[in-house]
Amino acid sequence: MDPFRKFVLKPTKLSANQIKLKNWDPHYIGNKSKIDTVTEIEHFSKKISDLQYKLFAANNKSLLIILQGVDASGKDGIIRQVMGALNPQNCYVKSFKVPNENELAHDYLWRIHMEIPKKGQISFFNRSHYEDVIEPGVNNLISRDDLIRRYRQINDFERYLTENDITILKFFLHISKDEQKERLQERIQDPTKHWKINESDIINHRNWDKYMEVYEKVLSLCSNKWAPWYIIPANVKYFRNWAILYIILKKLEIMKPEFPELKIDPSEYIID
Amino acid sequence: MDPFRKFVLKPTKLSANQIKLKNWDPHYIGNKSKIDTVTEIEHFSKKISDLQYKLFAANNKSLLIILQGVDASGKDGIIRQVMGALNPQNCYVKSFKVPNENELAHDYLWRIHMEIPKKGQISFFNRSHYEDVIEPGVNNLISRDDLIRRYRQINDFERYLTENDITILKFFLHISKDEQKERLQERIQDPTKHWKINESDIINHRNWDKYMEVYEKVLSLCSNKWAPWYIIPANVKYFRNWAILYIILKKLEIMKPEFPELKIDPSEYIID
Repeated sequence: MDPFRKFVLKPTKLSANQIKLKNWDPHYIGNKSKIDTVTEIEHFSKKISDLQYKLFAANNKSLLIILQGVDASGKDGIIRQVMGALNPQNCYVKSFKVPNENELAHDYLWRIHMEIPKKGQISFFNRSHYEDVIEPGVNNLISRDDLIRRYRQINDFERYLTENDITILKFFLHISKDEQKERLQERIQDPTKHWKINESDIINHRNWDKYMEVYEKVLSLCSNKWAPWYIIPANVKYFRNWAILYIILKKLEIMKPEFPELKIDPSEYIID
Repeated sequence: MDPFRKFVLKPTKLSANQIKLKNWDPHYIGNKSKIDTVTEIEHFSKKISDLQYKLFAANNKSLLIILQGVDASGKDGIIRQVMGALNPQNCYVKSFKVPNENELAHDYLWRIHMEIPKKGQISFFNRSHYEDVIEPGVNNLISRDDLIRRYRQINDFERYLTENDITILKFFLHISKDEQKERLQERIQDPTKHWKINESDIINHRNWDKYMEVYEKVLSLCSNKWAPWYIIPANVKYFRNWAILYIILKKLEIMKPEFPELKIDPSEYIID
């Protein structure tokens, strides 16, 4: 039995039945001890690294990992954790910030498409095109019709990508409001974490309910069979890391990259 | 009455009824004399130039002009003609050649999306993403299912663009097989035109029927209300130029770019 189904949501075709995040426990830690979980993480990392090497060699598919979540939900932490295991040569991280002048002069998917991984590559998006529905949704920046249209455009875009050999994993890092509060307070109190906080984080924390409402829409409307959302219980960091590494590993196993065959006839070549 | 409807096809919702190019006269030259047509071209150019200036100032929409057609159908000629009238500051030409190694390592729309015009800009694509259905279609490089999927992906992509303030004009330059033969022969005989020809042009000429068949598919399956195809009679260059400039002008008039209003209160500022 797949242990995975017990704790992480892989919502598909949910447009009709709206996801309610209050039904998902952000504190879930599975049924293993912390020490066993951490041991498994190392084990997963090694396997992921091997598969990454084959993916690079095969050079015909790529993997895009999208991380979304409120401030302090652990997006950077995950990237540090997973990247540690990978070969940086064909692994790439892109953090999408507030769009710059040139990006704003283009359609909103322009800067996203430009960063889509090449064949053989694994890319992490720290935030993504989902910010183009989340921020407008939370702050009522565009009309409801325009928002709905963007959801459809994003679904079409992701379908196109998966049809063109780009596998997409989308992780929503699900923490509780209390957990966010605690992490933000820590950032204020610890001088080594001051750089991580700014005023907007405090304002966003006050808008917690609005963010949850918009994320529920995103999870409900943009979870498709070609690119489902995974809701990751993320209050407890070791479990969050475990869950994400587990899913990445399983996905790479399904992608099944193989070393390509030798293209020359070795009997014809003598290397001396 | 719109003279335009009489001679250039603007096919919409044609997926069911396949376009037959033999029903379209590549030699059509309208009902005006050559001298009148050429005079009108100058008149159109001036108006287009004024509208381009407003489009640049308004800085909220863009125009993408896609040129497709067989070898020697006049894509370069059109660009020289129209560009002559425009301000190069916000007008851009992109010629899509055989994809390079980096382009091939990405999904086929990646290099296209990167070149999509910014707000305020007019861009010409000399060939485009349609090459990704035409060449595979003519040379049977991908399966029929994959081809059909690409038609759908292209329609989705163009719909997304038009929904994001990029107006698309698609021109198929329709010449006859005899006309192509004549132009290719001229390129062989005239030393100042040798640079324009290579072996593949001759092979492609032999594949004429296959090209027409694939173009008929493209025109039938990818003409949508948001981005219809225009079939331009292109045997006679002055008429081809007239028709395209006319359509660009009419489209810019519909886009109706306006100078933005002054953002400051002039009574508050004394410039001395």
